[in-house]
Amino acid sequence: MEEKITRRDILAKAAVLGVGIAVGSAGTRIASADTAETGTAESGNKNDEPKSGEEPVMRQWPWPYVKLDPVETAELAYNGWYELGCGGTVVMSIFSQLAEKVGEPYKSFPDESFVIFEGGLGGWGTLCGSLNGAAMVCSLIIGPPTKDETSVLMAINTMDWYSHAIMPIYVPKEPRANVDGIVHTVSDSPLCHVSVGKWEKESKFATSSPERKDRCARVSASVAYKLVMTLNEWIDGNYHEEVTWFGPQKALMPAQYNCADCHGKNVPKAPQPEKK
Amino acid sequence: MEEKITRRDILAKAAVLGVGIAVGSAGTRIASADTAETGTAESGNKNDEPKSGEEPVMRQWPWPYVKLDPVETAELAYNGWYELGCGGTVVMSIFSQLAEKVGEPYKSFPDESFVIFEGGLGGWGTLCGSLNGAAMVCSLIIGPPTKDETSVLMAINTMDWYSHAIMPIYVPKEPRANVDGIVHTVSDSPLCHVSVGKWEKESKFATSSPERKDRCARVSASVAYKLVMTLNEWIDGNYHEEVTWFGPQKALMPAQYNCADCHGKNVPKAPQPEKK
Repeated sequence: MEEKITRRDILAKAAVLGVGIAVGSAGTRIASADTAETGTAESGNKNDEPKSGEEPVMRQWPWPYVKLDPVETAELAYNGWYELGCGGTVVMSIFSQLAEKVGEPYKSFPDESFVIFEGGLGGWGTLCGSLNGAAMVCSLIIGPPTKDETSVLMAINTMDWYSHAIMPIYVPKEPRANVDGIVHTVSDSPLCHVSVGKWEKESKFATSSPERKDRCARVSASVAYKLVMTLNEWIDGNYHEEVTWFGPQKALMPAQYNCADCHGKNVPKAPQPEKK
Repeated sequence: MEEKITRRDILAKAAVLGVGIAVGSAGTRIASADTAETGTAESGNKNDEPKSGEEPVMRQWPWPYVKLDPVETAELAYNGWYELGCGGTVVMSIFSQLAEKVGEPYKSFPDESFVIFEGGLGGWGTLCGSLNGAAMVCSLIIGPPTKDETSVLMAINTMDWYSHAIMPIYVPKEPRANVDGIVHTVSDSPLCHVSVGKWEKESKFATSSPERKDRCARVSASVAYKLVMTLNEWIDGNYHEEVTWFGPQKALMPAQYNCADCHGKNVPKAPQPEKK
């Protein structure tokens, strides 16, 4: 069902939903990506000090990136989860450091607004917020798909990595639960409901338990760690991942790789909540 | 399975994944929501003209809102879809108008970055990008859940409305396909794969067809129309929706309302792509 193709073909992937993605010529607003050089080098802050009378030149895309420490990022993400949820904490863990190290446009942007991604968006169990947040980080830092297809590539490969990973990977320095070890599961899906559900089934811990909260905080930390590792490779020019197309996507259907997990007999009966 | 509860209980909903959502005290960055008054009235632009030597005071949350015309918004969203995809176009259709009418922080923000939401995030078929974009609009305009639970409420009620709507609702002034009428379907899900799949099964049009592209552009326009209608009610103080909790959510599991659509025999066999 899977086939490796060159990563240049990721642009063709936009055809999965038929969009040309000619960002920069869209509607009433023009992205300044063509002139923004800050995303391709470890740069200072061009926009911190607007001259008097000039409008602040904040509208840039991509946003500048400098290499971050994955462990420091993961610790921020783990502890931030308890206040910002999975999506908000992944964005905060990266943007808060860049606000310190780079300045604008990070200093001005309310990255906590991504708290809405929590629980597969407001508790509906769709896309895991940590992946939604990671995608936004990729998009803002790497820039328009027409300029560089890497943003979509990195976002979807992060979903693929997440789905196959034995989660949670990251072990926080001061875990708030599961201190003697934690149950690991493979979600085989980027969906919150599936990811959380499989872990709860295996661990027997309920959603409301401190253990489940620690697990999701560790998952967010794992995603933040992985994302910073990948962005560090990218800023060094060492990011050479390829996109994997799945069968349904080759048939132009937006989908993930494991059709039979839903279109089959693998879906469990909805379990009753376990009480600890 | 469903039960109406007061909308104050939405804060308790954050407990679905256990996050306290105490935005404003998180990590290294403080949201300025407590002092930002621009989101609660039709206001001008406080931040357009930073004084010389001062850092631009762009970090505000919520972002200001003024009433927009739903039809104009939907037209922008419909036509913008062909360049920005479902997520990018919903955000652009609203923020581009607010950039004109309000100014900052919309003028500075690269709303096209939400193009990454396309096709359920990069073609993976998870959360419909139009809903992901709508959630970000809600979050940025309405603000932190601790200040006002309405952002989460509006985002999840938009998902609920989408899932039950006979889509697409909006008829563009100059449709690019389906000019003599369009097949309507009910997705019963906020997921791209399900929403698109059910429409393709009913209409017999393939993902690559002009008819399917027009359908998704109309869906995005429908979401943008609905969202602006709702935001207009909200800014006038007339938004009084209640949250609906579903059975699994009451058991604290992040989930949508229709368990049996996945945990049952309702999932169709993965169809072969139809060719027109």
